[in-house]
Amino acid sequence: MNAALRAVVRAALGRGAEVIGFNHGYEGLINDESRNLDSPSVGGIIDRGGTILRTARSAAFMTREGRDQAMAVLIKNGCEGLVVIGGDGSLTGALKLQEEFDYPVCGVPGSIDNDISGTDFSIGFDTAVNTAVDAIDRVRDTAYSHERVFVIEVMGRRNGFIALEAGLAGGAEAILVPEMPFSLPDIGAELLEAASKGKRSSIIVVAEGAAKADDVREALSECTGFECRAVVLGHMQRGGSPTAFDRVLALRLGHLATNRLLSGFRGEMAGLAGNLLVSHPLTFVLSSERQIDPEKLLLSEAMAQ
Amino acid sequence: MNAALRAVVRAALGRGAEVIGFNHGYEGLINDESRNLDSPSVGGIIDRGGTILRTARSAAFMTREGRDQAMAVLIKNGCEGLVVIGGDGSLTGALKLQEEFDYPVCGVPGSIDNDISGTDFSIGFDTAVNTAVDAIDRVRDTAYSHERVFVIEVMGRRNGFIALEAGLAGGAEAILVPEMPFSLPDIGAELLEAASKGKRSSIIVVAEGAAKADDVREALSECTGFECRAVVLGHMQRGGSPTAFDRVLALRLGHLATNRLLSGFRGEMAGLAGNLLVSHPLTFVLSSERQIDPEKLLLSEAMAQ
Amino acid sequence: MNAALRAVVRAALGRGAEVIGFNHGYEGLINDESRNLDSPSVGGIIDRGGTILRTARSAAFMTREGRDQAMAVLIKNGCEGLVVIGGDGSLTGALKLQEEFDYPVCGVPGSIDNDISGTDFSIGFDTAVNTAVDAIDRVRDTAYSHERVFVIEVMGRRNGFIALEAGLAGGAEAILVPEMPFSLPDIGAELLEAASKGKRSSIIVVAEGAAKADDVREALSECTGFECRAVVLGHMQRGGSPTAFDRVLALRLGHLATNRLLSGFRGEMAGLAGNLLVSHPLTFVLSSERQIDPEKLLLSEAMAQ
Amino acid sequence: MNAALRAVVRAALGRGAEVIGFNHGYEGLINDESRNLDSPSVGGIIDRGGTILRTARSAAFMTREGRDQAMAVLIKNGCEGLVVIGGDGSLTGALKLQEEFDYPVCGVPGSIDNDISGTDFSIGFDTAVNTAVDAIDRVRDTAYSHERVFVIEVMGRRNGFIALEAGLAGGAEAILVPEMPFSLPDIGAELLEAASKGKRSSIIVVAEGAAKADDVREALSECTGFECRAVVLGHMQRGGSPTAFDRVLALRLGHLATNRLLSGFRGEMAGLAGNLLVSHPLTFVLSSERQIDPEKLLLSEAMAQ
Repeated sequence: MNAALRAVVRAALGRGAEVIGFNHGYEGLINDESRNLDSPSVGGIIDRGGTILRTARSAAFMTREGRDQAMAVLIKNGCEGLVVIGGDGSLTGALKLQEEFDYPVCGVPGSIDNDISGTDFSIGFDTAVNTAVDAIDRVRDTAYSHERVFVIEVMGRRNGFIALEAGLAGGAEAILVPEMPFSLPDIGAELLEAASKGKRSSIIVVAEGAAKADDVREALSECTGFECRAVVLGHMQRGGSPTAFDRVLALRLGHLATNRLLSGFRGEMAGLAGNLLVSHPLTFVLSSERQIDPEKLLLSEAMAQ
Repeated sequence: MNAALRAVVRAALGRGAEVIGFNHGYEGLINDESRNLDSPSVGGIIDRGGTILRTARSAAFMTREGRDQAMAVLIKNGCEGLVVIGGDGSLTGALKLQEEFDYPVCGVPGSIDNDISGTDFSIGFDTAVNTAVDAIDRVRDTAYSHERVFVIEVMGRRNGFIALEAGLAGGAEAILVPEMPFSLPDIGAELLEAASKGKRSSIIVVAEGAAKADDVREALSECTGFECRAVVLGHMQRGGSPTAFDRVLALRLGHLATNRLLSGFRGEMAGLAGNLLVSHPLTFVLSSERQIDPEKLLLSEAMAQ
Repeated sequence: MNAALRAVVRAALGRGAEVIGFNHGYEGLINDESRNLDSPSVGGIIDRGGTILRTARSAAFMTREGRDQAMAVLIKNGCEGLVVIGGDGSLTGALKLQEEFDYPVCGVPGSIDNDISGTDFSIGFDTAVNTAVDAIDRVRDTAYSHERVFVIEVMGRRNGFIALEAGLAGGAEAILVPEMPFSLPDIGAELLEAASKGKRSSIIVVAEGAAKADDVREALSECTGFECRAVVLGHMQRGGSPTAFDRVLALRLGHLATNRLLSGFRGEMAGLAGNLLVSHPLTFVLSSERQIDPEKLLLSEAMAQ
Repeated sequence: MNAALRAVVRAALGRGAEVIGFNHGYEGLINDESRNLDSPSVGGIIDRGGTILRTARSAAFMTREGRDQAMAVLIKNGCEGLVVIGGDGSLTGALKLQEEFDYPVCGVPGSIDNDISGTDFSIGFDTAVNTAVDAIDRVRDTAYSHERVFVIEVMGRRNGFIALEAGLAGGAEAILVPEMPFSLPDIGAELLEAASKGKRSSIIVVAEGAAKADDVREALSECTGFECRAVVLGHMQRGGSPTAFDRVLALRLGHLATNRLLSGFRGEMAGLAGNLLVSHPLTFVLSSERQIDPEKLLLSEAMAQ
């Protein structure tokens, strides 16, 4: 997020605009927690996780009164447009400002779940996947040394993007995602067969939206009789210094969104399509859903042999 | 562990002895899972977590019959002494071989909990602490950005060594260890007071033997009304490439234990006292208990202000 | 590379084929250093840098006699096709086998320089960039604390792919690549201007093909009078546990190349175009050149303000 | 350094004192670059490399006039004592203030070279060693895959502390330090003998004060005919998020120094002896020299077999 902020600020300054930031997201916008953002204020932050502006959920912004107040603050501060960095909820809020007040907004997709339509990658996803893979690598050392089955639960309530990517990269024997039905007895049978060929340790990666690690552990333990352990990565997957990919992505999307807004485009979200930058209407982004890549699902099966 | 193995093998070869390893610990010893260990066999493993010899619990070795069988295997393989790398359980087993059969053994302390007497540091502790601190750093990014309280549970069933070290290094606001009584309402009151001075995010580190993260989370949430989250690091703390400190420690202890054994000393465990190598009788090691450092407990209070 | 090997082996086994690997690349092929690769032989290697097959330059393979010998070895081992993982040189060798002997080959692009046409990303690039960024982050700590200018030389003899990506992600004040002319006096003037506004530390990233770090350091030191230091990352950029992106990329490309070869396609290289897999003729791949992305060059200028 | 600063500030506040920091070391002291340091000002910095106070060399402080000016600034700011965090140079400056003005000072040893007497470890050493080992691990991947000899130059102008520790932990075949004579032809002969037994890759670690990596590379290349490469780690070894060990060490030493100063002790430096805190007179610290540990030198020879 900090890299995106850096890009927004420097792109705007480069075109002669001034930039004001609001702490605590929409809540801070309503409460006028503004701060001036000049070029040095976003120096030295590109390697930091989280966001220097902090964030907060805002119940008030869900109401029309809250948004009226937010608009008043924007006008009071002389803001002529708003760049919003965040996930579905934040982007929906931006679209409301645009629709209700015809106020110029532009979105930058930030979501470690990578569940935002209109872009192949959201800011934070690559970092979260690498953090999960690092944890899987550590667990694999123990799985190998102790010859056990480990069930590792990663983030992803509604989808399996992190699970699929981290499972592939972590060399998991099975990957459970909400998008695909699975059978724990079948997986247990595969573990038994693998064990009969001498393979005594296995890693199962499961998206939190597909099953609870502990339930999978118990079920596999019962079918196989093997010692199974569950690990829930949880909030450890957030934060940490962002990967190079995420930093460059954030710079590119923040830069594009700001330039589009300053050039008069409105109600769009900057995104990546392959290696190219695109900008889609927020109405499109928020009414469609990213699908998991079937090629990668097939790949995970082929690799598990 | 791999670094210790490397040291044992190279120290022994350097003195003209041959080295045989047994896979799967005592279980593999009973089953004669021996393998020849020459110098190249321990090359290129110093940076790997876990152990190339794997490990396993052995119920059989707990019985006199099992140990008779183990002795028979040692004799059959022409072994004139045994170096055991591991924790309290492994060292107890070694002592039994020595006492029951007058067989020469020497121990090397490996335990990420750092709970082995007779040495200031056990192999694996520094790596586990750094892994925990890395996770705390990541969580702190989120704690700061979202202004929440996070309760992070680290390993340590019987003691708070990891919790205290990782909590200090992670800048935790409170550290809960089994060795010290604590009051969750008091901690809640401190969080409220800190919040009144503008501090909105906090990290509480808790040893698994002191309390469950989720119970702490619930109690603090109730006293303070703040949004609290629990993170259980679990098996992720094991494994991973060892730190420089752990590698050098393992080399030093493995080297010493092997040299002592080859020089005719028996029933000892190599250890570190300050920066000096020592070798204590296993009987002493296994009958005493490492105490947590009161200076560091005081330090954690002074730093939490 | 190891992840690609894993994918090749498991894809082939999944289709009923057997797999033989040759150590030391073409040199080992000529010398028949073959080894059988079954499924377990590629287990537990996905997180390891380098390649378990090792590699070597082969002067012999450059000659027709060498290639005759290589063909004889392939036939002797009953190989019906060859998957080659590597850079321009390796792929050129594969194409020669195909053209001279009508032998079925398929390529997988591996090059940390990312200079292979026909794919947006080569295996190893993302890992190398992240390693460089990690080093830049460390140097920036010192640059900030000591208020100095640091010139960091990264790999890239013929192009600036690593420099541009690592420079952007590392927040560099200037990025020097072979593809773009640059003026050291101009950069010096910018440093002086930045210093006049209070900015006292700067990072300059330079591709080894654009200039020597030490020459840049000397030139900037002269124009500005600032204390400048040079750091040459060198071979440290190679090796290390691969990133999630590189591992998944390697699995996808290795899997595709193997399936294409087994399906009767010949003389192709698997590649990534955006997020989609593609397979281009080696003749095309080897006769065209990857261009640096002008959008990112512009971005680097916009961010340096 | 930031962790030490945190400890100094919180220890002082805990005893009712106020804390003022000076940016840019002695230079900033002379120029009165003071800033108030309250508890929040040192929050969230424990995981950051470098120092928030920045640092600078001060030619002025070398003169009596400069020190007179520094004293005037200390008095003007109402400072009743000074804690100095740094290496030999910084500590010498502190001693001068004490001797010339009878002003209360206390030192905290910060030096990644670990060359300060009176303490087993200086702040920054463990982090620098781990950074060097991480780089050696990466280079070893390439050394192994390409079967080459790599000569890696690490910091240490006057001593071999980093080289010895990093070389041991990195599994180096030879470690060259200024404290011990060495013969490159002998090392070349050992490489040839190892190669005759099938060992084709080697890592040589050399302290910058013992020899230039490039000279070693050339000499070994000549005696052996092997492909040798040189890597100079340079400033990359500084900076980066500190290890757990360094953070806890910094907290302990900063806490002790501050408490000693507030309790009326003067002219001391806090240090670690084994696991115990000690405080030695600066006169002793600055007149003696840390010696390299002969046990570790012997260990490095035993491990290289």
